[in-house]
Amino acid sequence: MPGVEGVINMNEMELMLEKWLDLLEKKKYKELKTELNESNPADIAEFFEEVEVEKRLFVFRLLTKDNAADVFSFMDSDMQAHIINSITDREVKSIVDDMSMDDTVDLLGEIPANVVTRILKNTDEEKRAIINSFLNYPEDSAGSIMTIEFVQFHLDTTVKKAMEQLRRTGVDKETIYSCYVVNEKRVLVGMVSLRTIILSSDDTFIKDIMEDDVISVRTLDDQEDTANIFKKYNLIALPVVDNEDRLVGIITVDDIVDVIEQENTEDIEKMSALIPSENEYLKTSVFTLAKNRIVWLLVLMISGTVSSAIISGYESVLASSIILSSFFPILMDTGGNAGSQSSTLIIRGMAIGEIQMADVFKVLWKELRVGAISGFILAGVNFVRLVLLKTPLEVNMAVSLSLMATVIIAKCVGCILPIIAKKLKFDPAIMAGPLITTVVDAISLIVFFNAAQVFVL
Amino acid sequence: MPGVEGVINMNEMELMLEKWLDLLEKKKYKELKTELNESNPADIAEFFEEVEVEKRLFVFRLLTKDNAADVFSFMDSDMQAHIINSITDREVKSIVDDMSMDDTVDLLGEIPANVVTRILKNTDEEKRAIINSFLNYPEDSAGSIMTIEFVQFHLDTTVKKAMEQLRRTGVDKETIYSCYVVNEKRVLVGMVSLRTIILSSDDTFIKDIMEDDVISVRTLDDQEDTANIFKKYNLIALPVVDNEDRLVGIITVDDIVDVIEQENTEDIEKMSALIPSENEYLKTSVFTLAKNRIVWLLVLMISGTVSSAIISGYESVLASSIILSSFFPILMDTGGNAGSQSSTLIIRGMAIGEIQMADVFKVLWKELRVGAISGFILAGVNFVRLVLLKTPLEVNMAVSLSLMATVIIAKCVGCILPIIAKKLKFDPAIMAGPLITTVVDAISLIVFFNAAQVFVL
Repeated sequence: MPGVEGVINMNEMELMLEKWLDLLEKKKYKELKTELNESNPADIAEFFEEVEVEKRLFVFRLLTKDNAADVFSFMDSDMQAHIINSITDREVKSIVDDMSMDDTVDLLGEIPANVVTRILKNTDEEKRAIINSFLNYPEDSAGSIMTIEFVQFHLDTTVKKAMEQLRRTGVDKETIYSCYVVNEKRVLVGMVSLRTIILSSDDTFIKDIMEDDVISVRTLDDQEDTANIFKKYNLIALPVVDNEDRLVGIITVDDIVDVIEQENTEDIEKMSALIPSENEYLKTSVFTLAKNRIVWLLVLMISGTVSSAIISGYESVLASSIILSSFFPILMDTGGNAGSQSSTLIIRGMAIGEIQMADVFKVLWKELRVGAISGFILAGVNFVRLVLLKTPLEVNMAVSLSLMATVIIAKCVGCILPIIAKKLKFDPAIMAGPLITTVVDAISLIVFFNAAQVFVL
Repeated sequence: MPGVEGVINMNEMELMLEKWLDLLEKKKYKELKTELNESNPADIAEFFEEVEVEKRLFVFRLLTKDNAADVFSFMDSDMQAHIINSITDREVKSIVDDMSMDDTVDLLGEIPANVVTRILKNTDEEKRAIINSFLNYPEDSAGSIMTIEFVQFHLDTTVKKAMEQLRRTGVDKETIYSCYVVNEKRVLVGMVSLRTIILSSDDTFIKDIMEDDVISVRTLDDQEDTANIFKKYNLIALPVVDNEDRLVGIITVDDIVDVIEQENTEDIEKMSALIPSENEYLKTSVFTLAKNRIVWLLVLMISGTVSSAIISGYESVLASSIILSSFFPILMDTGGNAGSQSSTLIIRGMAIGEIQMADVFKVLWKELRVGAISGFILAGVNFVRLVLLKTPLEVNMAVSLSLMATVIIAKCVGCILPIIAKKLKFDPAIMAGPLITTVVDAISLIVFFNAAQVFVL
């Protein structure tokens, strides 16, 4: 019996991968086969990323039947499609039979159509029907991430019978730790944890130990809302019901962890003026990357012409003091940064449910004061800097006062725009740094030119 | 038996809260008491946020002893401190006795010192010793989020004995679904799931059905790395060992969900030039908010003076064509946006492990091409716009070519800076939008003035 595997850190992982690659290169296949089949499927899936393309099929065939399906389910969709395209129909069938329903559906949603056909051809009719119904759930819905491999009991099942049922069928279920209770119409009426079951005596009825206040979601509910329910109630599984409250599936927390990461990535991308993409950066083509970026760049560039127009409009002011234009970057960038900070906090606060629509005036009042403090300090530092640089006092006054006003306005714009977006049912995340900066730029220029007219001219 | 509780959506939640508030106002305490004690503790904790401060203690005392501890553990730390300060020593003791160890430690880490004293005073000696050792683990370490309420078996325990042990002690454990196996030195040697246990016959030895390849972390490992292990291996629990590989605790996936959200919030805040804060926005004072923002605003403002200096340096160019300054916003903003997009994708890719240091040239080559495509399109659109506006062709050429060059350079800067930060062991997240914008501003101005000198003068 080997000892404990220590911490799986980057270095150990890399050492292991190098060792396997070395075995492969030195053609020590028997040793490699033994090593792989004793390792964690997630690690083996990572190993495949390092193996040369033409050797992948060979390495895949070193895996035992059971391990092959496990490793396959940890691969990313490109690798999966590559493997499916290279193996025999019989091997495809063996893998698909062993994969859980939700992994199969995930796979089918992400691979090219010809590979989908190949897999469906090798799936028995019953499973194919289920898969087809799953593929009809909209992306990002609770239905699309649920699994149908759950445990359900009837109201008059006893603990003894429940345990027998678990022993008989439990091995194929996604989880046996949260079990659900349905009535004769398959309507969800309760939930019972395996913990409760094993702490109860054999002849107890499930209906007497179940929780009848079950939290559930519907198939068409949004996956982000579903994730929020997991977070709020600290769940490890959540039942999914149809419009008649019939139990049709469950969602487990490991899938929710992926949803949370995916939703966070989406928010972060939107906040940086990117159209979110589900694909890995390194596997996305240059054209797709460019396409996901160009829309917002164009929108923002064209919005930016407002600032150009403002500057052109005040050409006479500039002409009398060309040096004024050297303060554009500081004013515009500081305003943009101050506004982005506010919008980020508000967007994040709304995303994780800390800030509600009802808080709008509280938030605005807070940002106004934060803006006043920050603006005062920034303007002060800038004033001193310009004094040291012997900039004319009237220019200094115009710049420093504009800076202070810009920061305060930016803070307010930064908190109001995401809230308005939410009110209009847009995703608040689009009202982040880039758009805020464009809006604040125009405002800061107007403020600055007016201040300049008062002080400098 | 009530029917299923439907979807917990915002509207239903609000209706329920309103109903409870109404009962409270109309002094229907008996009815409120019944309703609350039949509801989910997470919902009740949310209700407390809505109750007027002076009535909170009263409502809290409507809860049964067991419910009180549950609801308490779902409250945020401010509310917890308020409750602890208002109740008797005896009530404090009753709550702390019922709370799980990791919830207690979380609580103590976040509340004012006088409240901590009050709680420790009402904790029995054994628990106090454990709590103290926990409080010594650094924030964000695996040790700080683990719990000691786990199930451990010895190598020669049989399945029958294991089940008896679970029935006897399982009720107090954080999870009984993942059980761990230790040798006589308390060294972690295996893991066995409850699923495996109940699928095995009574006289089987645990050592024959356990997995001996256990993934574990050490107490001082970072919580973000720990979260990545959960994600990679789809775990629901992970054992924590000390430096001698002895089992000292476990981490469960519900705590990891919180860690993931917290780390994401931190990254998002850093990417918007904020100093991350663990407190809720609405509960943070204006001064703290201002303090968390002013550092980066100052740093960026002072870095921005480079751009001012560049503009001043080219005063003679500007003097000969004042209109040039009207193109600053478009050039600087588009460059900043293009750079932010790249840096965001790289930072996120590194955070979720998709992009490694070894990929640096692949990334750079990709960004160079994406930059070329985006730059070409943006410059083209801008060129047409300026033709329509009858801008002199030489100015148009200078602006459009600078725009293209700026976008390409911005894409490269945006991907290189986060990678450099990582290499230097800084958090790549600081190399996001705001800093990239400042750097790109300076570059875009130099490019523009040089182009202007060639074409316009």
